[in-house]
Amino acid sequence: MMKIALLQMNVVEDTATNIKHAHRLAIKASNNDVDLIVLPEIFTCEYQAANFPKYSFDRLSDHYLAIQNIAVDTEKYLIAGSVPEKGLNGDTYNTSFVFDPSGKEIAFHRKTHLFDIDVKGGQYFKESDTLTAGNKPTIFETPFGKIGLMICYDIRFPEFSRMLVDEGAELIVVPAAFNMTTGPAHWELSFRARALDNQVYYAGCAPARNVNSKYVSYANSIVTSPWGDIIARADTDEEILYADIDLEYEKQIRDQLPLLKHRRLDIY
Amino acid sequence: MMKIALLQMNVVEDTATNIKHAHRLAIKASNNDVDLIVLPEIFTCEYQAANFPKYSFDRLSDHYLAIQNIAVDTEKYLIAGSVPEKGLNGDTYNTSFVFDPSGKEIAFHRKTHLFDIDVKGGQYFKESDTLTAGNKPTIFETPFGKIGLMICYDIRFPEFSRMLVDEGAELIVVPAAFNMTTGPAHWELSFRARALDNQVYYAGCAPARNVNSKYVSYANSIVTSPWGDIIARADTDEEILYADIDLEYEKQIRDQLPLLKHRRLDIY
Repeated sequence: MMKIALLQMNVVEDTATNIKHAHRLAIKASNNDVDLIVLPEIFTCEYQAANFPKYSFDRLSDHYLAIQNIAVDTEKYLIAGSVPEKGLNGDTYNTSFVFDPSGKEIAFHRKTHLFDIDVKGGQYFKESDTLTAGNKPTIFETPFGKIGLMICYDIRFPEFSRMLVDEGAELIVVPAAFNMTTGPAHWELSFRARALDNQVYYAGCAPARNVNSKYVSYANSIVTSPWGDIIARADTDEEILYADIDLEYEKQIRDQLPLLKHRRLDIY
Repeated sequence: MMKIALLQMNVVEDTATNIKHAHRLAIKASNNDVDLIVLPEIFTCEYQAANFPKYSFDRLSDHYLAIQNIAVDTEKYLIAGSVPEKGLNGDTYNTSFVFDPSGKEIAFHRKTHLFDIDVKGGQYFKESDTLTAGNKPTIFETPFGKIGLMICYDIRFPEFSRMLVDEGAELIVVPAAFNMTTGPAHWELSFRARALDNQVYYAGCAPARNVNSKYVSYANSIVTSPWGDIIARADTDEEILYADIDLEYEKQIRDQLPLLKHRRLDIY
């Protein structure tokens, strides 16, 4: 059994302010006996493609150290949502850093599928204007289980989840920020279906909703079970969402309805 | 634009009785200007693994001719749900025959993923006790569009749908019979998610619910759109469910949110 806390936090413009706020919420969550703390996608600045290079930083930055310090001060595993990462070559990535309770970085994921959308009468947004994509799935071990990590739009692609599950992921964590077009239509559906198809828990952590942002987060942070049920769901305001991840139940589901074994890998 | 009719019919024990009943409903549907008529999974006998060999027949049987005759008499394309097919080698398959309006068989699909389930306190059912699995995805052309065809449990596997979409399927038809355990939990979720992920229409045609059967069909025949919406849904009794398949809308969705193009085929 693993207890997780998703910090559905309010995000403002200033990076240092956001990290301090995340620190405060993480301390609060850590007092509730959790094993893993998760932050939302792009929790360090407003979610605007044009912002990403301007607000990007690298591992030598004070911002990185301040995030690392959240893990140290809480003494918890930390999936630090995502931040705009300044790459060596001038590229910018949408990157999630993962720390163990000592503050050691044990994994990082760069968003692999960039979100470019142009819905008639709805959302226009192009991450590829300013971001470079990552090139691999990310999985890491903890004492509580193997965790797969992807960012937002990555969840749209069934193949990517399959890779994580085939590598042994028992929980897949997704810092994410669906918007007010795709959120109501696809957020719950995607988290439930991926969990069901892959017989694995999913946890999606979003920024709280701010209707005055240029990009309005759907919020609704969510945890879904290997049977496709919703086991925890936040509303739209700032909130710490807790959930228990029961790996024994996951094993039972995989035994009773062995979807993963029933795949016809001889013909796909 | 393609108009389809799903015949969510009552199924009884006797094969000839069921085919006659399907014929009657198909004539009724054909008077409503449809392009394609779809029957449910195993519409010729009760859905019991032990029944399948006993009730199986082949293309030389009068039952086959009577089904073919439904297409001829309605002058419509017919996806004849599925029947237990007697194979040449003594095997039994769960097979869907497809006819054009002249009665010519233009495709057939043999269920490729066999349904073996053992849910604690819920459903026990093993198709593999009596059935042999097919070995390929099935797609065929009509004047209205390219149609992919799978049977029930085949929908559980994202890889299989992807194969059909990559071969150009614009509508995927699924004769199916989820039960009272998997139906409420997974029926709608699966049809919505596959349609969304693959940006294609799905149509699931189930037998009507008979609470006195040994295997109780969830019914709820359904049509879902490339945006993941439900555009038509039956209740539990016998019913002809009509839906309009708008391939222009499908194209718009694929343009606005180009999930299929955004796949990272370089890394899967």
